[in-house]
Amino acid sequence: MIPRYSRPEMTAIWEPATRFRIWFEIEAHACDAQAQLGVIPKSAAEAVWKAKDVDFDVARIDEIEREVKHDVIAFLTHLAEFVGPEARFVHQGMTSSDVLDTCLNVQLTRAADILIKDMDALLAALKRRAFEHKDTVCIGRSHGIHAEPVTFGLKMAQAYAEMERNRDRLVAARTEVATCAISGAVGTFANIDPRVEEHVAKAMGLRPEPVSTQVIPRDRHAMFFATLGVIASSIERLATEIRHLQRTEVLEAEEYFSPGQKGSSAMPHKRNPVLTENLTGLARMVRAYALPAMENVALWHERDISHSSVERMIGPDATVTLDFALVRLTGVIDKLVVYPDNMARNLDKFRGLVHSQRVLLALTQKGVSREDSYRLVQRNAMKVWEQGADFMAELKADPEVRAALSDAEIEEKFDLGYHTKHVDTIFARVFGDS
Amino acid sequence: MIPRYSRPEMTAIWEPATRFRIWFEIEAHACDAQAQLGVIPKSAAEAVWKAKDVDFDVARIDEIEREVKHDVIAFLTHLAEFVGPEARFVHQGMTSSDVLDTCLNVQLTRAADILIKDMDALLAALKRRAFEHKDTVCIGRSHGIHAEPVTFGLKMAQAYAEMERNRDRLVAARTEVATCAISGAVGTFANIDPRVEEHVAKAMGLRPEPVSTQVIPRDRHAMFFATLGVIASSIERLATEIRHLQRTEVLEAEEYFSPGQKGSSAMPHKRNPVLTENLTGLARMVRAYALPAMENVALWHERDISHSSVERMIGPDATVTLDFALVRLTGVIDKLVVYPDNMARNLDKFRGLVHSQRVLLALTQKGVSREDSYRLVQRNAMKVWEQGADFMAELKADPEVRAALSDAEIEEKFDLGYHTKHVDTIFARVFGDS
Amino acid sequence: MIPRYSRPEMTAIWEPATRFRIWFEIEAHACDAQAQLGVIPKSAAEAVWKAKDVDFDVARIDEIEREVKHDVIAFLTHLAEFVGPEARFVHQGMTSSDVLDTCLNVQLTRAADILIKDMDALLAALKRRAFEHKDTVCIGRSHGIHAEPVTFGLKMAQAYAEMERNRDRLVAARTEVATCAISGAVGTFANIDPRVEEHVAKAMGLRPEPVSTQVIPRDRHAMFFATLGVIASSIERLATEIRHLQRTEVLEAEEYFSPGQKGSSAMPHKRNPVLTENLTGLARMVRAYALPAMENVALWHERDISHSSVERMIGPDATVTLDFALVRLTGVIDKLVVYPDNMARNLDKFRGLVHSQRVLLALTQKGVSREDSYRLVQRNAMKVWEQGADFMAELKADPEVRAALSDAEIEEKFDLGYHTKHVDTIFARVFGDS
Amino acid sequence: MIPRYSRPEMTAIWEPATRFRIWFEIEAHACDAQAQLGVIPKSAAEAVWKAKDVDFDVARIDEIEREVKHDVIAFLTHLAEFVGPEARFVHQGMTSSDVLDTCLNVQLTRAADILIKDMDALLAALKRRAFEHKDTVCIGRSHGIHAEPVTFGLKMAQAYAEMERNRDRLVAARTEVATCAISGAVGTFANIDPRVEEHVAKAMGLRPEPVSTQVIPRDRHAMFFATLGVIASSIERLATEIRHLQRTEVLEAEEYFSPGQKGSSAMPHKRNPVLTENLTGLARMVRAYALPAMENVALWHERDISHSSVERMIGPDATVTLDFALVRLTGVIDKLVVYPDNMARNLDKFRGLVHSQRVLLALTQKGVSREDSYRLVQRNAMKVWEQGADFMAELKADPEVRAALSDAEIEEKFDLGYHTKHVDTIFARVFGDS
Repeated sequence: MIPRYSRPEMTAIWEPATRFRIWFEIEAHACDAQAQLGVIPKSAAEAVWKAKDVDFDVARIDEIEREVKHDVIAFLTHLAEFVGPEARFVHQGMTSSDVLDTCLNVQLTRAADILIKDMDALLAALKRRAFEHKDTVCIGRSHGIHAEPVTFGLKMAQAYAEMERNRDRLVAARTEVATCAISGAVGTFANIDPRVEEHVAKAMGLRPEPVSTQVIPRDRHAMFFATLGVIASSIERLATEIRHLQRTEVLEAEEYFSPGQKGSSAMPHKRNPVLTENLTGLARMVRAYALPAMENVALWHERDISHSSVERMIGPDATVTLDFALVRLTGVIDKLVVYPDNMARNLDKFRGLVHSQRVLLALTQKGVSREDSYRLVQRNAMKVWEQGADFMAELKADPEVRAALSDAEIEEKFDLGYHTKHVDTIFARVFGDS
Repeated sequence: MIPRYSRPEMTAIWEPATRFRIWFEIEAHACDAQAQLGVIPKSAAEAVWKAKDVDFDVARIDEIEREVKHDVIAFLTHLAEFVGPEARFVHQGMTSSDVLDTCLNVQLTRAADILIKDMDALLAALKRRAFEHKDTVCIGRSHGIHAEPVTFGLKMAQAYAEMERNRDRLVAARTEVATCAISGAVGTFANIDPRVEEHVAKAMGLRPEPVSTQVIPRDRHAMFFATLGVIASSIERLATEIRHLQRTEVLEAEEYFSPGQKGSSAMPHKRNPVLTENLTGLARMVRAYALPAMENVALWHERDISHSSVERMIGPDATVTLDFALVRLTGVIDKLVVYPDNMARNLDKFRGLVHSQRVLLALTQKGVSREDSYRLVQRNAMKVWEQGADFMAELKADPEVRAALSDAEIEEKFDLGYHTKHVDTIFARVFGDS
Repeated sequence: MIPRYSRPEMTAIWEPATRFRIWFEIEAHACDAQAQLGVIPKSAAEAVWKAKDVDFDVARIDEIEREVKHDVIAFLTHLAEFVGPEARFVHQGMTSSDVLDTCLNVQLTRAADILIKDMDALLAALKRRAFEHKDTVCIGRSHGIHAEPVTFGLKMAQAYAEMERNRDRLVAARTEVATCAISGAVGTFANIDPRVEEHVAKAMGLRPEPVSTQVIPRDRHAMFFATLGVIASSIERLATEIRHLQRTEVLEAEEYFSPGQKGSSAMPHKRNPVLTENLTGLARMVRAYALPAMENVALWHERDISHSSVERMIGPDATVTLDFALVRLTGVIDKLVVYPDNMARNLDKFRGLVHSQRVLLALTQKGVSREDSYRLVQRNAMKVWEQGADFMAELKADPEVRAALSDAEIEEKFDLGYHTKHVDTIFARVFGDS
Repeated sequence: MIPRYSRPEMTAIWEPATRFRIWFEIEAHACDAQAQLGVIPKSAAEAVWKAKDVDFDVARIDEIEREVKHDVIAFLTHLAEFVGPEARFVHQGMTSSDVLDTCLNVQLTRAADILIKDMDALLAALKRRAFEHKDTVCIGRSHGIHAEPVTFGLKMAQAYAEMERNRDRLVAARTEVATCAISGAVGTFANIDPRVEEHVAKAMGLRPEPVSTQVIPRDRHAMFFATLGVIASSIERLATEIRHLQRTEVLEAEEYFSPGQKGSSAMPHKRNPVLTENLTGLARMVRAYALPAMENVALWHERDISHSSVERMIGPDATVTLDFALVRLTGVIDKLVVYPDNMARNLDKFRGLVHSQRVLLALTQKGVSREDSYRLVQRNAMKVWEQGADFMAELKADPEVRAALSDAEIEEKFDLGYHTKHVDTIFARVFGDS
C-alpha cells in the first residue's frame, strides 16, 4: 500500500484515528452490556459515552504506548483522561484481543463494503459496454491465433459474469470475517458474561464468534484474503485482454487518452496500455498476500501473536490495493475506446478463411465425401494463405465446389450472423431478462 | 501426489480409464440431445450407447494419440471401433474443450464429494472427543506460555467449529466448479444448440456455464484450489496443536502407537508425533497449489492452453493429498491418547499461581486499594515462582491478605469451575442442543 | 511430475532402485571408514561390498517396511540377506537421517547435473539462433506497442545472457546442496567419528555439512528450489515472447510444425503455440514449489519430519518438470521458424513513422526550434497515421522540412543501420569475442 | 512496510528525496561522459553539477508530475530550474528507464549493504553466544521429543553457520542487481554511445548490463527477492527455536525483559516471546514478496510496465522489513537470557534414561546377547518411566546388569562428556581456528 495506489476512502479505515474510534465503540458497548447485567454501575457506562465525540489524540496515545509498551492500555489510559474515575470500569473482564480482533473484523467488513461498492460500479460499466457492443463482431482467438467470430459485447459479458461471481465471493468473504469476540483471556468467558459479546456483536454489526481462544480463528481471515487473491486474478485477466487488444498490430481497443495527456503525436501509435499493465502488477501483489494469511492460521495453542505483524501489513495493503485496482479498472472499462473498424479488418485478415469450417461442413452435407470436401477447401484456403486471394471468390471459381454449392449457398456460409445467433441467449443467461 | 500419500478411492478419479469413461458419457449424452433436436439420427445416438459397458483400452488410445497428437481425437477414433460408422455423428459441433473442461469439472466435483465425506468423518471424530473431554481441564496457553484454564473438549470444539466452516467452504467450492460447457469453438454455440449443453449438464449433475469462451473460466478453479489451501491450513493448525501437546515436557496428548509399532521401549519417552508432522508438510503442499491455480485465471483472449499442464498436475495432486491428509487426521483424532493427569500436573506447575488474577480481583472487591492488592499478590506470587512455595498456603499465611479474605474465600478463588462455567454455552453454540 | 512431462533420465534419479543403490553406497563407504578407524572389522567392510552389484528387490523392501514401519531398517534387513552376519556392523553409530539426507543431496546434485547439461543445450541453441539472426531487423516493442527497431538476434542474445545467469545460479544451487552428514542422532558425532563423514562425503562427491542436527539444514534446499523457480520464470519469459511473436496479427516467428503433425490446412493460420503455452504452465508449477521449500526451513529444534513429505513430492516434481521444460524449450528454439519478411512488414506498418524521432532530432540539430521541429514532424506523422501516407514522401514534400533537410539527409534518417550499429558491441558483451 | 517495523536508515533509501538525488547523479555522470565524447558541450556538463548540493523540492516535482503525468520529465523540468538553459543537454539519447532502472539497482545495492551489515552484527551476536555456551549441555530434541544431549552453543553455532550462508547469498544477490543500463529506447544504444553507460556504471558503483531492452532484465530482481525470502525463512527457524525454548514447560531460554517493561509480576511466568513471534510473522511477509518478483520476470517483448507497481511496493517492503527483522533478531540473541539450570533439569527429566542407548551398547560389547541386553535395559527403563525411579540406581541394583558391568562402568555410561567430545571439532568447522 503506497499513496500512489491508494484511495482516501479505503485508507481512512486503517488510520489510527479510525482504529481508536472503533476501540472506543467496542468498549462503550461492552460497558452498556455490563451495566445492564449489573456488573458495573449504570453511571459508569453513561460516563464512558461522554467520550463519544472526542477526537482521540493519536500522538498522545503513541506517547503513552512507548512508556507502557501496550497499545490497548495506552488507549484506555488516554480514554480515562476524558471519562474520569469511572474509567476503571471500562474493559473489565476483557482481554486486549477482544478489542483488537473485533476491531480488525469491523475494519475488514467496512473494507469489504467499499470493495462491494467498487464491484457494483465495475459491473455497471461492464454491463453498459456489453450491451453497447453486443453485436460488434470481432475475431475470437484461441492461443492468440484467430479462431471464429465472437462479439466484443460477449467479451464484456464474460467479464461481467466472472466479476459477478467475484462479487458473490466477496459477500461470502465479508460474512466470514463479520464476527466479534468478547470472551476474555483464553476465550472461556471466565470473567465476562457471553451476553456482553452478544450485545457488542449486535451493536457493531457482527455475529458472536462461536468459539474463540483469546483470538478469533484465522481460517476466517485466510479465506478473506484468498478471496481477494482470486478477485485480483480476474482483474489480471481483463487487464491482459485489454493489453492484448491494444497491441499495435491488433488495436481493437485502447485505454482512453485524455487530450492533455502526455502522449507523442509525433508517434501517434505510441499509446501504451499503462493502466492495465499497472493493474497486472497490482494483481500480483494482492495475490501474494493470500499466502501469509494462510500461514497465519496455525497459531500455537490458544494463540500466539505471529499473525499480528502480518495483518498490520496485509490488512491495509490488500484492501487498499484491491480497491484502487477495482476503481482503476472501472475507469478503464468505462472509457475504453473500441475500434469496430479494426475489429472488422482483423476479422477479415485472411479474406474469408475464417469461414472455411462452415464451407467444409456444407460440402459434406451436400454429399461430397469428407476427403474430397477437405481437399477442395484446402486447395482454396492455400491460395488465400499463400497468395492473398479472396476465399469466397476462389470457391466460386472452383468448378468442383460449384458442382456442390451455388453462389448463394457459398455466400450464406460467409454470414457472420451464423456466429452471433446465440448472443442474445448468452446475454439472457448473464444479465437476465433486463 | 505420490502413492505413499494417496488413497485409491481418490486416485481412481484421475485415472485415464475414468477420464475416458466420463468423456464417453459427455459425448453420448450430447448425442441424445442432438438426436432429440433432429441434428443427428436417433439411431446414431443409440449406437453410441452400445459402448456403455466397454472398458476402453487406455494403451490403444495412447498409441493413437502418439500418432494424431490429439487426445480427444484419439479417444473418438477408439470409440468408433466399437460404435461403427455412426460414430461420425459423435462430437458434432463440439470442440475438444467442451469434453475436457466438462470432464475436469466432473472429476473435481467427485473429488469434492469424497473430501466432504472425509470432512464428515473428521467432524464426527472431533465431536466425539470434544464431548468425551468436555470437562477435562488443562491449561490454556497464549504465546506458548501458561495463561488460564480451558478444557481439552474446548480445543476439540474449536477445531470442530473451524472444520465445519471448512466443510461449508468445500460445499461452496464444489458448487463453483459444478458447471458444464458444450458451446463450441469460441463459446458462441455457432455449431451447436445451447439445449445440448443444458441436457448434458443435467445428465452429468452440473449446471450450464453461463458464458464460456471455448473454456470454462478459471476463476472457478482458482477459488476451488484456494479453498483447499485454506482447509489445509486448518489441518496444519490442528496438527501443530497435537505436536505441541506431545512434546516431552508437555505430554498432554499423544498420537496412538500400535503395540506392534516399532518404538523404543528402552527409550519409552521417544514416541514421535510423526503423523501430525507429516500432516504439516502435506498442508504446505496443498497450500502451494493455490498459487498456480490463481495464475491460471488470466488466459489470453478466448483461451490459451497454459492452464492445462498446471491442472494435469494439481488436479490430482491437491485433491489426493488433501483427501489423504483429512483421513489421516481423522485417524489421529479418533485414537489420540489423552493424558488428563499430565494436564492436571501441568496446570498446577506453578502451584496455584494460575489463580493470581482472581485473588487480585477479590482483594480489590473487598476494598483493598489496587496498589495494595497488587503488592500483596505479587509478594506471595514471587515466593511461588522463586522458592516453589504453594500459592494458596502463602496467601492464607499472609496477615494482610487474611485481613481481607477468609480461608474459604481464598479457597473459592482456586475453584477451576469458575473457568469452565460457560463450557456448556460454548458447546451449545458449536454443536447445537444435541 | 506426471509421465507426460517427464524424461526417463531425470525420473530415474528418483526411482526406489536408485535410492537404495545410493543408500548402499553411503553405508558401504561408511563401513570402509569405520574399518579404517578400527571401529569395525575390515572383513565386515569387505563383506558389505559383496552386495555391490546386487539389484535390490524393491518389492521385498516395501514388504519389510510394511512390517517394521521404517524404511531404512527395511533396507538394512534386506541388505543383510546378501551380506550375511557381518551386516550387524553396517550403519553403526549412524542415524537414519544420515543416510536419507545424504542420499537426497546426492539425488539433487545429480538432478542439477542434468539440468546444467540441459541449460548448456539451450544456451547452444540460443547462441546459434542469435548469430543466425544477428542482423534480422524487427520492431522492438514496449508495452506491446511499436517502439524502435531491434534485431531478432538481439532477442536471442538477451535470452542467452539471462539463461547464462541461470546456469551460474544453477551451479551455485548445486553447490548449496552438495553436502553430506554422517553425524548421528542429534549431529554431535557422539557415536561416530567425524572422519567417517569426511570419507563418505568425498566418496559420494559431496562436502561434509559443517554442523548438522540429525538433519542437514533446509535453508540449503530452500535456496535450491528458489533458484529453480527463478529459472522457470525465465523460461516463462522466453515462452511468452514466442507466444506473442506467433500471434496471428504479428506472426514473426512460429513453433515448428512437423509435416505429419495434425494441423489444419483448411485453416492454415491455425497453428497454435502450444509448446510455449505448455511451458508457461510448467513454469507456474516449478515456481510454486519454491514456497513449501522455504516453509521447510523452520524445523523444530534439532529436527522434525514435516519437511519429508514436502521433499518426497517436490524433489521429483520440481527437477523432473524443469528438466522437461528446458529440453522442450531447447527444441522450440532450435526449430523455431522465423519470418524475416513479416518482421519487415510489421516494422513498416506505419510507413516510416518509426523514424520520426530521428527526424525530429535532425531538425533541431539544423537549428529549427524545438517547437517548430515538433510541429513539422507531427503534421506529417498524422498524415501517415490518419491517411496511411508514406512518412518519407510526406517529409520530402513539406517545404518547411525541405528548408532544413535535403532529400539525402531525410533518407539517411530512415537508415535502419542507425539502430543496429551497436549490435556487435552487445554481442561481444554477451558472447565474448567468439 | 509500516513505521512500526521500519528503521530510518533503510527507509531513507526509499524516500523521494533519495530517489531524486540518485536520478541527478545518473544524469550528471551521463552528461560528463557525453561531454567527453563531444556529444554535448563540456560547459553543459559542468552546468548540471551546479545542482549538486540542491535539495530537490519533492512537492514541486510532484506538482509538475500531476501536470505532465511523467515522473522523469517532472524531475528534469525541476532540475532545469537550477541548471538553466543548458539543461536541454541533460538526458540526451536516454530513455526514462535508463534512469529508473539504474536508480532502482542503486537503491537495492545500498539496501543490500545495510542488510549485510545487519547480518554481520547478527553473526557477531551468534558467535559470542555460541562460545559463551559452547559447553552448556541441554537435551537435543527431534520431533519435539527428547533425543540425546547437545549444547546450547551448538544451537548457536548451527544458526551462525546458516546465517553465514545467508550472508554469502546476500552478497551474491547484491551482485545480481548491481548493474546499470544507459542504452536508450529499446536497449540498442541507437542514440547513445555504450561508453556513457560504462562511465555511469563505474561512477555509481555498478557494472554495465550486458544486454538491456529498455529495462534491466527482471530475473536479477527475482533472484534478489527470492534470496531475501530464504533469509527470512532462516530467521523464522531461529525465532521458532527461541519460542520453543521459552515455553512454560521448557523455559531453557527467554527473551530479555527490561525491568521497566510491562510484565506481570503477579504472574511471573507470563513472559511472552513476543519479539520472536513477531519475527515469525515478518518472515512470512518477506517470503511472500518473492512470488510477485518471480512473476515480474516475464515482461512482454522489450518491456511492459507491470513490474513497476510491484517494485514500488516490494522494493521498500521487503528490504525495510528484513532489515528490521535482522536487527530485532540480533537484539534478541544478544540479550537472550539462558537458563542452564533448567536445561540440566529438563535433560534429567527421565532420570538418566537419556543414556539407555549407551548402556545397551555397553552390554552387547560385554558379550551379552542383543536380545538379553535389550531386555535388561528395557525392564529398568520401564521402572524409570512408570515409577519415576533413577535409571543408574536401578541398573546398579539389577544383578544381571551387574554381572556384565561394574559400578564404574555403569557410571561411565552416564558421562555427558561422551556427547560433547566433538563440540570443538564442530566449532572449528564453523568458526575456523579463531
